[in-house]
Amino acid sequence: MLRTHTNGELRISDKGKKVTLTGWVQKNRKMGGMTFVDLRDRYGITQLVFNQEINADLCEKANHLGREYVLQIEGEVSERSNKNPNIPTGEIEIIVSAVNILNESAVPPFTIEDDTDGGDDIRMQYRYLDLRRNSVRANLELRHKMAFETRRYLDSLGFLEVETPVLIKSTPEGARDFVVPSRMNQGQFYALPQSPQTFKQLLMVSGFDRYFQIVKCFRDEDLRADRQPEFTQIDCEMAFVEQEDILQTFEGLTKHLFKTVKNIDLQPFPRMSFDDAMKYYGSDKPDTRFDMRFVELMDTLKGYGFAVFDEAEYIGGICVKGAASYTRKQIDALTDYVKRPQIGAKGLVYARIESDGNVKSSVDKFYSQDVLQKLKDKCGAEAGDLILIISGDNTVKAQKQLCELRLEMGNQLGLRDKNMYSCLWVVDFPLLEWDDDTQRYYAMHHPFTSPKPEDISLLQTDPSKVRANAYDMVINGVEVGGGSIRIHDSGLQKQMFQILGFSDEQAERQFGFLMNAFKYGAPPHGGIAYGLDRFVSLFAGLDSIRDCIAFPKNNQGRDVMIDAPSIIDNTQLDELALSVVKE
Amino acid sequence: MLRTHTNGELRISDKGKKVTLTGWVQKNRKMGGMTFVDLRDRYGITQLVFNQEINADLCEKANHLGREYVLQIEGEVSERSNKNPNIPTGEIEIIVSAVNILNESAVPPFTIEDDTDGGDDIRMQYRYLDLRRNSVRANLELRHKMAFETRRYLDSLGFLEVETPVLIKSTPEGARDFVVPSRMNQGQFYALPQSPQTFKQLLMVSGFDRYFQIVKCFRDEDLRADRQPEFTQIDCEMAFVEQEDILQTFEGLTKHLFKTVKNIDLQPFPRMSFDDAMKYYGSDKPDTRFDMRFVELMDTLKGYGFAVFDEAEYIGGICVKGAASYTRKQIDALTDYVKRPQIGAKGLVYARIESDGNVKSSVDKFYSQDVLQKLKDKCGAEAGDLILIISGDNTVKAQKQLCELRLEMGNQLGLRDKNMYSCLWVVDFPLLEWDDDTQRYYAMHHPFTSPKPEDISLLQTDPSKVRANAYDMVINGVEVGGGSIRIHDSGLQKQMFQILGFSDEQAERQFGFLMNAFKYGAPPHGGIAYGLDRFVSLFAGLDSIRDCIAFPKNNQGRDVMIDAPSIIDNTQLDELALSVVKE
Repeated sequence: MLRTHTNGELRISDKGKKVTLTGWVQKNRKMGGMTFVDLRDRYGITQLVFNQEINADLCEKANHLGREYVLQIEGEVSERSNKNPNIPTGEIEIIVSAVNILNESAVPPFTIEDDTDGGDDIRMQYRYLDLRRNSVRANLELRHKMAFETRRYLDSLGFLEVETPVLIKSTPEGARDFVVPSRMNQGQFYALPQSPQTFKQLLMVSGFDRYFQIVKCFRDEDLRADRQPEFTQIDCEMAFVEQEDILQTFEGLTKHLFKTVKNIDLQPFPRMSFDDAMKYYGSDKPDTRFDMRFVELMDTLKGYGFAVFDEAEYIGGICVKGAASYTRKQIDALTDYVKRPQIGAKGLVYARIESDGNVKSSVDKFYSQDVLQKLKDKCGAEAGDLILIISGDNTVKAQKQLCELRLEMGNQLGLRDKNMYSCLWVVDFPLLEWDDDTQRYYAMHHPFTSPKPEDISLLQTDPSKVRANAYDMVINGVEVGGGSIRIHDSGLQKQMFQILGFSDEQAERQFGFLMNAFKYGAPPHGGIAYGLDRFVSLFAGLDSIRDCIAFPKNNQGRDVMIDAPSIIDNTQLDELALSVVKE
Repeated sequence: MLRTHTNGELRISDKGKKVTLTGWVQKNRKMGGMTFVDLRDRYGITQLVFNQEINADLCEKANHLGREYVLQIEGEVSERSNKNPNIPTGEIEIIVSAVNILNESAVPPFTIEDDTDGGDDIRMQYRYLDLRRNSVRANLELRHKMAFETRRYLDSLGFLEVETPVLIKSTPEGARDFVVPSRMNQGQFYALPQSPQTFKQLLMVSGFDRYFQIVKCFRDEDLRADRQPEFTQIDCEMAFVEQEDILQTFEGLTKHLFKTVKNIDLQPFPRMSFDDAMKYYGSDKPDTRFDMRFVELMDTLKGYGFAVFDEAEYIGGICVKGAASYTRKQIDALTDYVKRPQIGAKGLVYARIESDGNVKSSVDKFYSQDVLQKLKDKCGAEAGDLILIISGDNTVKAQKQLCELRLEMGNQLGLRDKNMYSCLWVVDFPLLEWDDDTQRYYAMHHPFTSPKPEDISLLQTDPSKVRANAYDMVINGVEVGGGSIRIHDSGLQKQMFQILGFSDEQAERQFGFLMNAFKYGAPPHGGIAYGLDRFVSLFAGLDSIRDCIAFPKNNQGRDVMIDAPSIIDNTQLDELALSVVKE
C-alpha cells in the first residue's frame, strides 16, 4: 500500500509515529509562517502541518497544493495545540517531512462539501466528484451494509442465493419491458426482467426450498420523480410455507437490519387489513408514525340541508390534536392544498373545538351546536382540537384526498420524524382490480398470486370480492416490500389467466413453461420482494432513491455522466437486422 | 411451516418423536405387506413405512403415490431394522399415520437421479426438473457458498460492494455489445456492460478506495462450448496500491475460499512471467499440476541434415517420465492427435530412453547416439522416459502445439487430478498485441492497463516490447482471474488511445467522461476480476460452466426452457421506432 494508515485512523496514542498517508487535499490554509492542509480519504480527515521556518521549500510546495490534489506524504504524528473535538483525528496533526504529488487536479466545478454549491445537474454530470462528498458516500456505505446483513441473515436461515437470467423473454402483462435484439436469432428479442418472479417459482418447483437474490430489475416506464429504469430488489421465496411463515421470517429480516445497522429494537409489527388501511388512512401504505385516523361521518352530517354533504358518497374527517389555533389563513392554505389538481378535492370543511368545548365550524349555518357536539364526540375531539372534513361522490377518491390532507397535517405538526420508525403488515389485499377503460380485471399484485382458499368459489361469481394471500410491509408510509402466497396448481393458474383475459394460446405462449412445470409436483410456496433502493433511502432518511444509487439516471432515463443512451454504429444495427424508423 | 423437520435431519436420537415431513416421492416400493416410500427434499431422503396390516387404507393410498408427488406426512420416528449406512438418516424410518398429497406429478421425462437417463437437450428444456437432481443442486449450493464467502472476506477487509449500472453506453472496442433500444430517446440505445471496468475506475476517482461487486456481464459473441452470453464476475478494485498489494489481497481471497469451502490450505502462489509461461509451457495459463516443462532444442538438434529441424524456427521437447513403454501404436495415435486441424502440427518426433540408457529415436538416421545422448541430458531424461519433440516455422504456433501435446500426456498419465489444485500468478504480460489483419495494436488486457513505468519510453519506439502491470491468476491451467494496475494519468491514457488507433474524437466520444474524471485528482489504482462461473466449475470439478448456472443458455444463445429470445409484438417495435429488416 502507498500508505501506512488511513486519514481516519490516527489518535493521540499514535504520537511520535512515522507515518505515510495518502488522500485528497480538502483545504489548504496559510496562517503566519504555518501552512495547514486537510487531507481527506474515505475514512476521514487528517491535518497536515508545514512550518516555514523549519522547511521553507516544503512549505512553499504546500502553499501551491490545490483543492483535490492527490498526495502521498510522510511525517510524524504530533499532538495539536488547537484540538478539534468534532472529528476523531482532531487531537493530532502530522508534521510533514516529504510530499509526493500523486496527481494534480483541475478546480472542481463544485465544492466537495456536505453542503455543496453544486446544483443537481452538474453534480450528476460529475457524479464521480459528487461521490467524494461524505454524505453521498455514507449512503452507499449504508447500502453495502444493508445488502451484506441481508445476505448474512438469510444465509443463516438456510436461504440460497441463486442468480436467475437477465436475458429472458418479453411478457406484455405488467409494465413495459426493455428488450434486447438477438444477433444470432435475427428478428427475435430477449427482454430484461421486471422481476425474477417466474424463475424463483421454478426454483421452488426444483426443490430449492429457500431462495433469495439481490438482483437488478428493469422497467421501461415513463419515469416519475422517484423511479429508475433499473432498480434493485431483495427477492425471496420459500416452499412448504403458509403466509404466517413468510411474515415471521421477513419481519425477522427487517428487525435484524434495524438492529445491526441502526441499533434499533423494533416491536412486533401490527397487522392491518387492506380494508382497514383504506378505511382509516385512505391508503394501502399508511404512515402510522402518527394516529389521526379517519372518522366516517355519513350518519353524523348527512340530511341537514348542506348539499355538498347530502349528495356525497363519502364524508370523512380527521381530528388534528391541538390545532384549534390554526388561523383562517392557515386553513385557507390547507383548502388550497387539497384543491390542487394533483389532489383534486372540491373543498375543505373545518370544525374548531374552542376552549369552552363549543364547536365553531365553517358550515355553522347548516348544523346546530347539538349536531356539532355529536361530530366532536364521534371524532374523539377535545377543546383545542381541529376537525378537518372532506367529502366526495367517489369514496376511494375522497379517501385518497383525505389521506393527502392527513399526511400534510403530519408534516406541519412534525409528526413524521425521519428518525422514528413505524412498521406494519398490510394484509388481505383484493386479488383483482377492475379496470373500466379496458373492461377487464387486472391482478392487483401479479397473475401468480393465490386467492385465499375460502374465497376461491367467488372467482366464478364475484371476482372483485376475492381476497388474496398477499401482504405488504409498510414502514413510515413507504411500501418497502410486498409479496404473496403463489398459486401452485396448474388448473387454478389456468383459471387465473382466463379471468385476466388471456386466451389459452397467449397463456401457453407466455407462461407455458410455468404451467407445465406445475404439472410435475409443484410445492406450496410464497415469497416477498423488497425494493432495496427505497429501503436504503428510508434508512438514510433521504427524500429520493437517487442518492443511494451510485450512478443513477435522470427523469428522462439518461445517464448524463456517460451520455447514455446514445446512437450506435450502423454496422451494429445491420448485424442485428434492425433499422430505426424516422418520423 | 408445513413440516416440523426436513428429510435430512432426523437421527436415531429422535426415535419416538411425532413429526410432520414434506417432500417429493423419490421411490415407492412394495415388499410383502409393507410399502416403503423415499421422501426427498433439498436436505436429504427419509424413508416412510406403511404397513398393510396396521392401516390397510393408508397403505393402499401409499401404493398409488407416483414418482415426484408432493407429500405432507405425519408419523413417528422409528428405528430401522435394515439400516442404510450410506445416508445420514439411514438408521431411522417414519411409521406414517397420515398422508396429505400436496400436489400430484405427471411422470417426469427423465429420472431424478445423479445418473439420469435424460440427455442434455431434454434436461435443459425441463431444467426445473434437472435442478432437482442432487448433483446439479450441489453445484448451486457451492456457488452460493463461494459468493457468500467472497463477500464475507472482502467486507472484512473494508471493501464496499457498489452496484454499477446495467444500462450503459456502447463501446465498439473489445467484444460485441448487447444493445437495448431506448423508447424515451428514440433511435438511441443503451448497451449492457461487458464489465464494470470504467465505473469501478470512476469509483476509485471518487475515493471509494476498495470496491467489489459480484455482477452480471454480457458479451454478444459467437458462443464456443464454454461461453455464455451472460456471465458473472467478481469484480474488484483498490486505490493507493501497487501490483504487489493486489496480488497479496486476492491470493488471500482465493486461499480463504479454498479453506472455507474445501478445507484446503494452499501454499503461497508462485509467480511466473508471461515470457517464461510461453517458454516452458507454451501457454499463458499453464497447468502446473505436473512438471513436463518444454526444453528448447535448437542448439542440440539443428545442423545434422534433418531438413524439418534444420529449417525450423523452433524445436522443443518434453520429457515424459516413465513413458518409454509407449507402443508404436500409441505414439502413432499421439502423432495423429497433434496433426489434427485444431492443433495443426506437421508431425511428432520421439526418442525413447531404453533400460540400458541408449536412446532410440524416430530420426535415428540423422542423429548419432552421441547427439541423442546430448538430447537425453538436455531433457534430463533417464532410462524408461520418452522424449516427444515438435518443431515449426513459427515459434508461438509450435509452442502452442507442444502445449496441447503436454496437456494430452498429462491426461493420459493421470497427472491432471481434479482434486489437486496448483495455483500461480502469471505476471509481466505484454501491454499490446499487434494484429496483422487490421495493421494495428490491440490492448492485450484492455485500454486502461498501465505500462510498467520503466517501459513507458518504449511506447514511442517499440510498443510491442512494453510490458504491462498486468497479472492473471491461474489454477490448474484455468485463468480464474486477471487484472492490472490502471493508467490514472489523463495524458498517458490519451497516448494509449492514440496507439490503439482511436482518433481524438472517438476517444472523446466513448471515454471522454473517464479522461475528464482523470483531470480531477485520480489516485493510483488497480484491480482484478474473477470469472465466477469458471471459478465455481473448478471447485466443482465440472468440465463445463453450464452446470453451475441455474438457467444457462445453449450454444445458440437460447434458453430452450422459456423459449427466448422470441419475436415481440409490433406495438413494442413501434414504440421503439424500430423495424426488423427482412432479408
